[in-house]
Amino acid sequence: MKFSNRILSMQYSPIRKLAPYGDAAKKKGIHVYPLNIGQPDIETPQQFMEGVANYKDAVLKYAQSQGLDETIESFIKYYKEWKIDFEKDELIITNGGSEAISLALTTICDVDDEIIIPEPFYTNYGGFAEAVGAKVVPFITKAEEGFHLPTKEVITSKITNKTRALMVSNPGNPTGVVYTEAEVRMLADICKEYDLFLIADEVYREFVYDGLKYTSALYMKDIEDRVILIDSISKRYSACGARIGLVASKNKELIAQIMKICQTRLCVPTIEQLAAANLINTPKEYFEKVLMEYEARRNILHEKLSKIPGVVCEKPTGAFYVVAKLPIKNGEDFAKWMLTDFSHNNKTVMFAPAEGFYATEGLGVDEIRLSYCLNTEALSDAMDVLALGLEKYMEIQGTAQI
Amino acid sequence: MKFSNRILSMQYSPIRKLAPYGDAAKKKGIHVYPLNIGQPDIETPQQFMEGVANYKDAVLKYAQSQGLDETIESFIKYYKEWKIDFEKDELIITNGGSEAISLALTTICDVDDEIIIPEPFYTNYGGFAEAVGAKVVPFITKAEEGFHLPTKEVITSKITNKTRALMVSNPGNPTGVVYTEAEVRMLADICKEYDLFLIADEVYREFVYDGLKYTSALYMKDIEDRVILIDSISKRYSACGARIGLVASKNKELIAQIMKICQTRLCVPTIEQLAAANLINTPKEYFEKVLMEYEARRNILHEKLSKIPGVVCEKPTGAFYVVAKLPIKNGEDFAKWMLTDFSHNNKTVMFAPAEGFYATEGLGVDEIRLSYCLNTEALSDAMDVLALGLEKYMEIQGTAQI
Repeated sequence: MKFSNRILSMQYSPIRKLAPYGDAAKKKGIHVYPLNIGQPDIETPQQFMEGVANYKDAVLKYAQSQGLDETIESFIKYYKEWKIDFEKDELIITNGGSEAISLALTTICDVDDEIIIPEPFYTNYGGFAEAVGAKVVPFITKAEEGFHLPTKEVITSKITNKTRALMVSNPGNPTGVVYTEAEVRMLADICKEYDLFLIADEVYREFVYDGLKYTSALYMKDIEDRVILIDSISKRYSACGARIGLVASKNKELIAQIMKICQTRLCVPTIEQLAAANLINTPKEYFEKVLMEYEARRNILHEKLSKIPGVVCEKPTGAFYVVAKLPIKNGEDFAKWMLTDFSHNNKTVMFAPAEGFYATEGLGVDEIRLSYCLNTEALSDAMDVLALGLEKYMEIQGTAQI
Repeated sequence: MKFSNRILSMQYSPIRKLAPYGDAAKKKGIHVYPLNIGQPDIETPQQFMEGVANYKDAVLKYAQSQGLDETIESFIKYYKEWKIDFEKDELIITNGGSEAISLALTTICDVDDEIIIPEPFYTNYGGFAEAVGAKVVPFITKAEEGFHLPTKEVITSKITNKTRALMVSNPGNPTGVVYTEAEVRMLADICKEYDLFLIADEVYREFVYDGLKYTSALYMKDIEDRVILIDSISKRYSACGARIGLVASKNKELIAQIMKICQTRLCVPTIEQLAAANLINTPKEYFEKVLMEYEARRNILHEKLSKIPGVVCEKPTGAFYVVAKLPIKNGEDFAKWMLTDFSHNNKTVMFAPAEGFYATEGLGVDEIRLSYCLNTEALSDAMDVLALGLEKYMEIQGTAQI
C-alpha cells in the first residue's frame, strides 16, 4: 500500500504546526494571545442566522451544483457595488475560498504546470498546487519594500512554457500589502503578453486602510477573460465557519469547465447558502465600524512593532496581517520558545513563523506573521508581552553564542 | 490560455444531462416524475434542525480541520452500533461523501495510477478519478446476475503494477446489489494478495431489504488497515443538502496523510457539523419506518418492471436504485423522447440512461437507472406511465425500421 507522491510532498500547515505547544501552555494555565491565525473575533452579522431561519423545507435537499439562485444573485448584487458586473453563468458558489482555489488550479493545471506567485504567500496556495501536482514558482517581495511588487522583468523572468497563471492575494495575506493601480496594471500586461490567467484572490477586498483606493483585477477590462476571481464571505462578514466562497470569471468557457468538477462534488450546503445570501442585507455601518476597528488595531500593532529595536516592518495597508523581520536567527524557534519557555504575568503570544509562507528555501527564516484579530486592548498587551519575550530570547541567544 | 487535460477529459454529469429537457416538459405543463436522481423525499429528522439551534456563538468560527469533536464522537457512537470500533484519529469529517472519495483518491493515486471498479458504478467515481489524473479500470457485472461480482480471476486479471485500490459501493449505486459475506471476503483476499487498498463506499448501509445481512468491508479484520471507508449522512438521514460525510480508516498513517489536504481546505461548515452530530439522537423508529417504506417502493417498482415484456431486472436488495435492461437500442434516446415527445394524462417520467454508469464503451446503452425516491402511489403511477411510454416508443421505433 503506497501513498501518492503528491500527498507525500505536501506539508502539514505551518500555521497550525505550533498548536500542540499552544495547548500545552494553556494547560499550564498561561493565557495565550492567538496572533497566529486569521480567525476574526468580530461578531458575525445577525443577518447570517436570520438567513439560517429562512430555511423551512421538511427535506434538506441538494442545492444546484452552481449554487442556489438567491446566493448567486446576492453576490452579483454585491459586486455591482464594486462596479463589477457579473452575469449568472459567470459565478459558482464554493466550499469557501479554499475550494475556489482548488477548482481554479485543477481546471488550468496539469501535472508539472507552473503558477507564479509573489512570496511570501498564503501557505495553502502551495498545498492546493501540490494536491494537483502543479508547481509554485515564487518571486521575492521584501519586508523593507512593504512587500510591493518588483519590476516587470523580475516577474517575467520566471515565465516558462509550463506557466499557466500568475496568482496574487490582494490585499495580501500574509503581507498586508495593497497593490497600486499601476501594479495591478503591470500584472494584467504580463498576463496579456504571455497568454496567462490571473488568479486574483480578493477575499480581503473590504480591508483597505488609510483611505487607499482598491484596484480589483477585474478593473482591467482588457484582460477580464483572463481573471479568475477567488472570493469568500469568511473575512468580510466574520463567517469563517460558514465555508461559503466563490469562483468567478468573465470567461464563461472557464466557468463551464469548472462546473464539471462542481457537478461531481454535487453542491455546497443548502442552509449555509441561504444564510450567506441574506448577508447582502448587512447594513453599511457594520463594515464602517469593522474597518475603523481594524485600522486602530493595525496602528497599535505597527506602532509597538516599530519601537522594538531591529524590527523591520513597513506599515501594512490592508488585510489583517503583518510580516515582520526580527533581529533573530530563527522565527520558528522563537515562536516555539514563546510557548514553552516564556510568559509575562502568566501571558504569552502565539504567532506564525513566516518561513512556511515562502517557497524558496531559507527565505523568511527570521520573519514572523502576526494577525490582528484581537481587540485593541488585548492586542496592545500582547505586543508588550511579545516585546519582552523577544528581549529575553535575544539575551539567552546571545549568552548561548558566547 | 489553456485548460488542463484533466478537465477536458471530464464529462458533464450524465444524471443531470437531461435536466434541460425535463425543464422544458415542465414548462409545457407536464408533470415529470423525477426517477432520475437519488434525492430522497423522506423528511429529514427534526434532530437536524435541533442541532442547528445548538449553535449559539456570536462569531461563526472555523472548526478543526478534522471535524468538530461532537461530530466525530457521534460517528464513533454510530459505528459502535454496527460493531465497528473507531478511535478519534481514524476519522475525518468531510464535505459530503463526495469530498471523502476525492480525498481518498488524491492520497493514494498519482497520475496514471489505476482504480479497479465493478461497472456499472456511481458515475462520479469516474469524475473524481479524472480530476486527480487517475484511471478507472472496470470489470463487468451483469443485470441478469443481479450485478453480483464475477469470479476472483475476472477481477485479478485487471490488476497491473499501476493498480492502487479496488473501489466498491455496497449496497450498490446504481445497481441496488448487496454483496454477500463471501463476496466481501473475496475482495478482501484480493487486496491482501495484491497489496491494494479497498475503498468501501457504504453510504447506503441502512438500505438493505428482505432481512438480508449486511457485511461491511471493516468486518474483514485481517485487512482493516487496507479499508478506506466512505460515508455520508445524506441518504441515511435524508440530509443531502447538509454535505456532511466522512472518510475513515484503521490505517492511522493514511488518515494522517489525508489530514494534510484537510488542513489546506481548512474545515467543514461548523453549523452543519453541529446539526449532523445531533442526528445520533434520531429514534430507531425513524429508520424502521424508512426501511419499510423503501422496501414497499422497491417491491412496486420491481413488480411493475417485471411485467413489461422484454425487460431484464433482478430484484435489487439494497440502496434505492435499479438498473433495468430494456428491449430497445438506446436508453438515452428513449429517456430524451419521454421528455420531449411523450406524456400520458399529462404526465411523464424522467430517469437516467445507464450508459453513463459504465466506463467500457458500448456497455449499458440499452439500460436505464431508476431511483425510487417517490412515495408508493406516485411510483406506481410513474411506472404505469413508463410502461405505456416504452410501448409507444417501441411501436415508433419498429415503424421507423420498416
